[in-house]
This record gives sequence, structure tokens and C-alpha cells, in this order.
Amino acid sequence: MEQEQSQDRFAALPRPPYFAVIFSSRRKDNDNDSYEAASDHMLSLAKRVPGFLGMESTRGTDGFGITVSYWTNEDAISTWKAQSENSVIRERGRWLWYDHFEVRVARVERAYGSH
Amino acid sequence: MEQEQSQDRFAALPRPPYFAVIFSSRRKDNDNDSYEAASDHMLSLAKRVPGFLGMESTRGTDGFGITVSYWTNEDAISTWKAQSENSVIRERGRWLWYDHFEVRVARVERAYGSH
Repeated sequence: MEQEQSQDRFAALPRPPYFAVIFSSRRKDNDNDSYEAASDHMLSLAKRVPGFLGMESTRGTDGFGITVSYWTNEDAISTWKAQSENSVIRERGRWLWYDHFEVRVARVERAYGSH
Repeated sequence: MEQEQSQDRFAALPRPPYFAVIFSSRRKDNDNDSYEAASDHMLSLAKRVPGFLGMESTRGTDGFGITVSYWTNEDAISTWKAQSENSVIRERGRWLWYDHFEVRVARVERAYGSH
């Protein structure tokens, strides 16, 4: 998903409140093809969960990345997490692709944009 | 701040609850020196606001970036926003450096990491 064109990178979101999962990670410098496949798989899982609103993701050349996914409610997040953890890809990913990651789950209370 | 070494990129945060400001933006391909200076200025302003907890930031080679700043309470965010808006740098930045940006203010309710 990190290869998308820039104009598609912003999530189109409803008015708050909704929920955000902020995933910060530092990639190992390895195995980019399998990482890209897994990343696409996580997004395709998310898109099938009712309550998924959108995702924004980017990573710098130093391997540090931030992905924020948006959800209508916490049950949807739990569903996505459970499906991901049942996925061999996710379990491999945690140890194979990342040196370190942090997850913060938050309730978005207000939002505004440049236009 | 996007030039920091990867090992320093994770914010050291207390246990939730706390607040997050998620700033997604698409940079214009221009004026990198002034942008870096302004970005550093925003971070230095934040560090002087009581209640600032940390910041994580990254940007891909396509110009799409995500910066998440963390705060103990919403008053601290308002203080930072007011100081930023009083800054010529911030006002220039909105129109000079970004094609588009979105801001979401959220209350972090739970968090976990890889170790």
C-alpha cells in the first residue's frame, strides 16, 4: 500500500467520532517482496471488515513508518486484529519484518483539513 | 525532525489515556531548507509546552507524510496550536509547503508494543 500514488493517500473519513489505530514501526532492511505482500494482505483484510473507514500509511527511507487505520467502532478493530493474528503472514511479520513497533488505539474527537 | 536516526524515532509515552494529534500531509516538491527549519521550529515549540509527551514523524519519497504528536491533555494541544498559528512560519507553511493536509485529534485509550 505504500506504493500508491500520492493523490490517493488521504483517507476519506466521516465526521468524528470514530477510532484510529496508530501503528509505528521500524522495518528491518530485508525481504521487501514478502513485506509488500503482507502489507497488501492486511489492507485487504481490513477492507472486508464492516466498520473499516480507511488507511493512511507512509515510510521513510530510514525504515521508520507510520500507518493509521480508521474504524467506526472498537469491535471492528478487534475483528481485524483477530483475523490478522490468525494469519500466518501477520505472525511472521512481527518478527521477520520489524525491529520494533508500537500500537496506539485512539478515539478521534475532532478533525479538520486544509480545504 | 525527519532526519533523526531511526532508533530515536519512537516516542516514549506513559500509560494511556493521553491525546494524539495525527497530521497527514502531502508536501509540495519545493523549498526543503525552509520546510526543515519550520518543522524543527514546530517541534521546539511543542517541547516547551507543558503536557507535550513526544512526537513521531515520517515521510515517504513521494511527499506524503504522517506526524503524530502526543499530549497529556487537550489544553496543551490548544496552547501549541495557538503558538504555531502566531508563528509566521506556520502560516507560511500551510500554503507554501503543503498541497493538502488533514488533522485528527484523538484520545488514546490503549497501547502496546513489540517489547
